[in-house]
Amino acid sequence: MLRANQDYLKLPGSYLFSTIGKKQREYKAAHPDANIISLGIGDVTQPLVPAVIDALHKAVDEMAVRESFHGYAPDLGYDFLRNTIAEHDYKARGCDIAADEIFVSDGAKGDCGNIQEIFEKDVKVAVCDPVYPVYVDTNVMAGRTGTYDEKTGTWSDVIYMPCTAENGFSPELPKETPDLIYLCFPNNPTGATITKDALQKWVDYANEKGAVIVYDAAYEAYITEKEIPHSIYECDGARTCAIEIRSFSKNAGFTGVRLGFTVIPKELKADGVALHSLWARRHGTKYNGAPYIIQRAGEAVYTEAGQTQIKEQVAYYMKNAADIRTALSEAGYTVSGGVNAPYIWLRTPEDMTSWEFFDLLLEKANVVGTPGSGFGPSGEHYFRLTAFGTHENTAEALRRIKAI
Amino acid sequence: MLRANQDYLKLPGSYLFSTIGKKQREYKAAHPDANIISLGIGDVTQPLVPAVIDALHKAVDEMAVRESFHGYAPDLGYDFLRNTIAEHDYKARGCDIAADEIFVSDGAKGDCGNIQEIFEKDVKVAVCDPVYPVYVDTNVMAGRTGTYDEKTGTWSDVIYMPCTAENGFSPELPKETPDLIYLCFPNNPTGATITKDALQKWVDYANEKGAVIVYDAAYEAYITEKEIPHSIYECDGARTCAIEIRSFSKNAGFTGVRLGFTVIPKELKADGVALHSLWARRHGTKYNGAPYIIQRAGEAVYTEAGQTQIKEQVAYYMKNAADIRTALSEAGYTVSGGVNAPYIWLRTPEDMTSWEFFDLLLEKANVVGTPGSGFGPSGEHYFRLTAFGTHENTAEALRRIKAI
Repeated sequence: MLRANQDYLKLPGSYLFSTIGKKQREYKAAHPDANIISLGIGDVTQPLVPAVIDALHKAVDEMAVRESFHGYAPDLGYDFLRNTIAEHDYKARGCDIAADEIFVSDGAKGDCGNIQEIFEKDVKVAVCDPVYPVYVDTNVMAGRTGTYDEKTGTWSDVIYMPCTAENGFSPELPKETPDLIYLCFPNNPTGATITKDALQKWVDYANEKGAVIVYDAAYEAYITEKEIPHSIYECDGARTCAIEIRSFSKNAGFTGVRLGFTVIPKELKADGVALHSLWARRHGTKYNGAPYIIQRAGEAVYTEAGQTQIKEQVAYYMKNAADIRTALSEAGYTVSGGVNAPYIWLRTPEDMTSWEFFDLLLEKANVVGTPGSGFGPSGEHYFRLTAFGTHENTAEALRRIKAI
Repeated sequence: MLRANQDYLKLPGSYLFSTIGKKQREYKAAHPDANIISLGIGDVTQPLVPAVIDALHKAVDEMAVRESFHGYAPDLGYDFLRNTIAEHDYKARGCDIAADEIFVSDGAKGDCGNIQEIFEKDVKVAVCDPVYPVYVDTNVMAGRTGTYDEKTGTWSDVIYMPCTAENGFSPELPKETPDLIYLCFPNNPTGATITKDALQKWVDYANEKGAVIVYDAAYEAYITEKEIPHSIYECDGARTCAIEIRSFSKNAGFTGVRLGFTVIPKELKADGVALHSLWARRHGTKYNGAPYIIQRAGEAVYTEAGQTQIKEQVAYYMKNAADIRTALSEAGYTVSGGVNAPYIWLRTPEDMTSWEFFDLLLEKANVVGTPGSGFGPSGEHYFRLTAFGTHENTAEALRRIKAI
């Protein structure tokens, strides 16, 4: 009998950011004059840098002439981009990653969601709590998470690793042994980071237990402190236990351009099966490569001009992060994050729930943020603000929040 | 225990076009002077048309300025593109499809591969034989196809619908009742088409049996004859049984640009569950929208200039199709297709297997085509040539084939 995917039906409610968008639209409809400022979803606001714009125009011109036109891209990405990534993001940091271990894609969200597919249905997943919803939701859709408990907001077959003020928002090794561990540093949503020594402990643990770490490093460009690793492959032994996912969205403002990549070392195996070849097979069967002109734009990010320009853009956002930290601290809020990450994580005042604080901020300050509880139960009583606004909007939002 | 997806491991060998590419590279390595002409993979060779190039440049310029910069696109596509598609591809043909039933994506291959995910694991799949490998392979990866029989090249739990010379390469209604039926017209690989009356029978059958048709109409722009439907929604009742997948790859040369869309009417249900909302949930969770600049390029395809220019490009390729048909018929081959499709389907001479003929053509004519058996057992003793080459290369390839 024709039935819909029953695992899809287990997903409670809709995707966090859709709910926020709906609440925002409803408020706007009821208060058409309200000038709402969003420090909610992690979307960038600054335009693409000149080096990227130039590369896009040049590539578009190539597509207009038969001799330089590009049809289907190689499934796994053009060599010019894979080589550039290997050189700048890995070799330059002393990481042993070859160009053919880099899989170019249309962004980190898709890769984060699809990566679970190369694993068996019975693998045990561990996630940080709070966590980027895509890791959990895509495992729900694959039937891997058991039953949902509405009271606690947790799944019976998922291992949750609380990240709280007590542990500095850095997870401890789980008591129950997982097969697949999702880690994200610098972290979304808490803005917390991990030192190289602490990350090495996770790599050693995964190698000892035969687990795989999916390391989401989408925010590595925001790292300002020296002891913080930019890649998990800075740790010894990561080639036999780690997959790394990276993005051009936040370092170069590609949220609406779509480019990312996933690294799978050739040594990485699950029960003797090379995951590199499984991911290659997935790309070859369900994906047709990132657009040529966008891969050229990605390449331009690594040029001298591109690097200078995107560093200025990251600094622009990090000024917001510093301003938010300062203003909220002055106003008596308990804040963390915002030093090596574009996210500020704040404790709600007077023990308000995350959604109560969301409504308060929307109504009293016309500011939209993200309720911490939307990222998991340990996010309750917390709230995420992003540094991706303009300076003007961020300053105005802070003025309004302080005035509440 | 950490295990790789065991269903992935069931896939025999590698993806058809990867194998062809490998054979071609090996031949080239052994014969560096050979000037190989590929009429194999369905990639286009003509550059993007001026209307599309102009739209791309304009959109790139918008991305350079804060006021007109675009971050995350709406998950399901920009209204400007969805409205344009609804108007031109559906309303103009009398099809009742609303803009919000159109899901914009990065191409038909991904949609063809991902669509099975919204159905339960036990649904019974029916495919034409021969068939575009993605439909079957993605169901194999989902554990839906049973065991593989190396001798026959078929899966135990898949319903195969032979398309042979006897039935004019048009499938008959299957004896065993399927839940999910993949149809592709104009067909890849055979180049065959279906009349509106014949397609209506499939729609009636699906509605009667409670099955869903996935209708791949990626080649509709190549239809030249009046009685051939461009969309399954030209048939009565298709809104309750059909999903349609479309592409910009072949009508506008977007193989390396990546844009497509899938239509799911809101009435379409599986066991009471609206498939529209499941597909929306998939988009929202695993996908982040097609790039803004590329959606603007898609919109330009529908302008008056865009329409004129892409029709010229389709006519360019269809001259190749006519030339291939004529030349091969003159040389004594039995050919079909190539009238409403950019594919020519030919019977191999002297009962050679498809791969024997592939090797013969590669060695004696330095021409690459696609072995029919790679598309399924009923493709054995057939061979696919595409019309997507340049006029010069196509003429030269035909000269060499005739000289064998």
